[in-house]
Amino acid sequence: MDKRIYNFNAGPAALPLPVLEEIKDELLNFNHSGMSILEVSHRSKWFDDVINEAVYRTKRLLDINDDFHVIFIQGGASMQFCMTPMNLVPDKQIVDFINTGVWSTKAIKEANIQGKNVHVIASSEDEGFSYIPDNFQVDNDAAYLHFTSNNTIKGTQWHRFPEAGGVPLVSDMSSDIMRKPFDVPPFGLIYAGAQKNIGPAGVAMVIIRKDMLERVPENLPTMLKYTTFTEKNSMANTPPCFAVYTINLVLKWLDEKIGGLQEMNRINREKAEILYDLIDSSDFYRGTARRDSRSMMNVTFRLPSEELETMFVKEAMDAGFGGLKGHRSVGGCRASIYNATDLDAVKALAEFMGDFEKNRG
Amino acid sequence: MDKRIYNFNAGPAALPLPVLEEIKDELLNFNHSGMSILEVSHRSKWFDDVINEAVYRTKRLLDINDDFHVIFIQGGASMQFCMTPMNLVPDKQIVDFINTGVWSTKAIKEANIQGKNVHVIASSEDEGFSYIPDNFQVDNDAAYLHFTSNNTIKGTQWHRFPEAGGVPLVSDMSSDIMRKPFDVPPFGLIYAGAQKNIGPAGVAMVIIRKDMLERVPENLPTMLKYTTFTEKNSMANTPPCFAVYTINLVLKWLDEKIGGLQEMNRINREKAEILYDLIDSSDFYRGTARRDSRSMMNVTFRLPSEELETMFVKEAMDAGFGGLKGHRSVGGCRASIYNATDLDAVKALAEFMGDFEKNRG
Repeated sequence: MDKRIYNFNAGPAALPLPVLEEIKDELLNFNHSGMSILEVSHRSKWFDDVINEAVYRTKRLLDINDDFHVIFIQGGASMQFCMTPMNLVPDKQIVDFINTGVWSTKAIKEANIQGKNVHVIASSEDEGFSYIPDNFQVDNDAAYLHFTSNNTIKGTQWHRFPEAGGVPLVSDMSSDIMRKPFDVPPFGLIYAGAQKNIGPAGVAMVIIRKDMLERVPENLPTMLKYTTFTEKNSMANTPPCFAVYTINLVLKWLDEKIGGLQEMNRINREKAEILYDLIDSSDFYRGTARRDSRSMMNVTFRLPSEELETMFVKEAMDAGFGGLKGHRSVGGCRASIYNATDLDAVKALAEFMGDFEKNRG
Repeated sequence: MDKRIYNFNAGPAALPLPVLEEIKDELLNFNHSGMSILEVSHRSKWFDDVINEAVYRTKRLLDINDDFHVIFIQGGASMQFCMTPMNLVPDKQIVDFINTGVWSTKAIKEANIQGKNVHVIASSEDEGFSYIPDNFQVDNDAAYLHFTSNNTIKGTQWHRFPEAGGVPLVSDMSSDIMRKPFDVPPFGLIYAGAQKNIGPAGVAMVIIRKDMLERVPENLPTMLKYTTFTEKNSMANTPPCFAVYTINLVLKWLDEKIGGLQEMNRINREKAEILYDLIDSSDFYRGTARRDSRSMMNVTFRLPSEELETMFVKEAMDAGFGGLKGHRSVGGCRASIYNATDLDAVKALAEFMGDFEKNRG
């Protein structure tokens, strides 16, 4: 392809074009430093400004106060599956999980590996993880309640976050952080691999409530302690500078070009409605998630046969629509429409889907 | 600065200009994918080719065979300080360390945190880590012998690696991997944060001999096990794609533009000699490392007073030479001359240093 495609990848995923253009423009000389952002010391004023701005914009966009730290940790959400119970679950205390698919299952597995007292209080495995459970009882004495806010593989999403009384919420928001405003104070910790909605692969954003830090055991390896990151503004060792820099540009775009999370939410709803309306008004396409649990980020659907699905993905690619194949574990089709995938891309896809149905349906 | 400076940063550090230009050129459309490398799926043919090429080039440049895995892990060398003993030291077995400064000390600390049976068989702490110890006895039954091949802060470097009989060597080569050819088979594991000699911050290259994998305990957290990375070509979860991509470009530059590690070594020696010759022929500049232990990568030196050092760093910056301030823990001056800092930059610095001495000496 000599021109850019419409990118519906599940992650790593589309980035806003203005962000890519800014990176490109200043790649040889960042902010008059005479160096690329890839060459600038993390101990310099230049990088200090970058990371401080990323923290500031995160707090501003999510409307969070100084009760929280915003830190950046390498290893993706997968590293957080392990760090969260290691840091925040005292050995005998119970920890609650809600299982909504592959990512929740991995988080549960890592808590079990550490011998934590895991209690899965609800699961949608009985119907192939096609819905978000709404009937569960949180243990009053749980260290926290963990859930995955959006499930990229099955295309489900929490539209109202669980209520847990005084028990802190912990959530993997890798695939939908910054998609809309929400009430942060009930969360003890939020983590998000950047490569879906806020940046490139290679870093997780972690938002941690300060009272959680009292639980961090003294004797953990340095790089596995949240306090190592909160005490040094994520720079106890060299941070993933370029990934943090790109996140900051994405947040700036969200703030200044989009106009904040209310507006982002309005656009995201409009995008999702276009695709779900098309699916619902068709006998050819079939949504795979229960309607009340449908994701605004990952629209999963099937065609009448696997043969047609293969044909659909191939013809779409030829027409300039990438990333429409479903996750290798479930097959089918999936259009991931994160923040950076714009309305025009979604409208063009809907038109293509309409045409494909006419020709092949 | 509107033009690029001569970059003597200790890390993140200079990258080869042709590499930066290639990144810039294809930033909006990588290899005809219609996407930025920042947007390409790690499960795609495009990224597969990138990571496979990076592994292939590493093996080719270092002349290593299939007895070794080359993997990429997030968290920098600091994460390897913790992972190496966790994976490779059975609980009661002794593990040997040679302490040559801050980085070795951190590696030792992490093994101690895990309650490992640590034996520091030599240290140069008695003379402020200004030399490389040459008198030590490796324990025959040690799990491995760990050493730091180059010490960025004090400017010392191993010119002949320690001999340990059948005991596997483990080395932190963050600041000098790929500076010259060396004999890899005695090493059980080599790790290197990329941001000094081979790429940007945000990834460590790990070279592990296959027999070491038999030691990896079953019950470790998934993201802390070397086998998680060796079994899935570093892609059990989303890897730091952009950092791996940049490493591959640096290795291609080393291979195709420089002509391999023999030639790189010749250039590196020439660069270091220019600066050390200037220092040795001057009463104004004074090298801080013992002559036989001097680093080819980090030339550390003092001026007659701290006032002159401050003036030197400032005037150098104004003249377009960046990164010459010594590490905040030791003061003084330091010129880091990794692979990507070319001969012209070093010659220009030597000229500046000569002039400064004339004017201020």
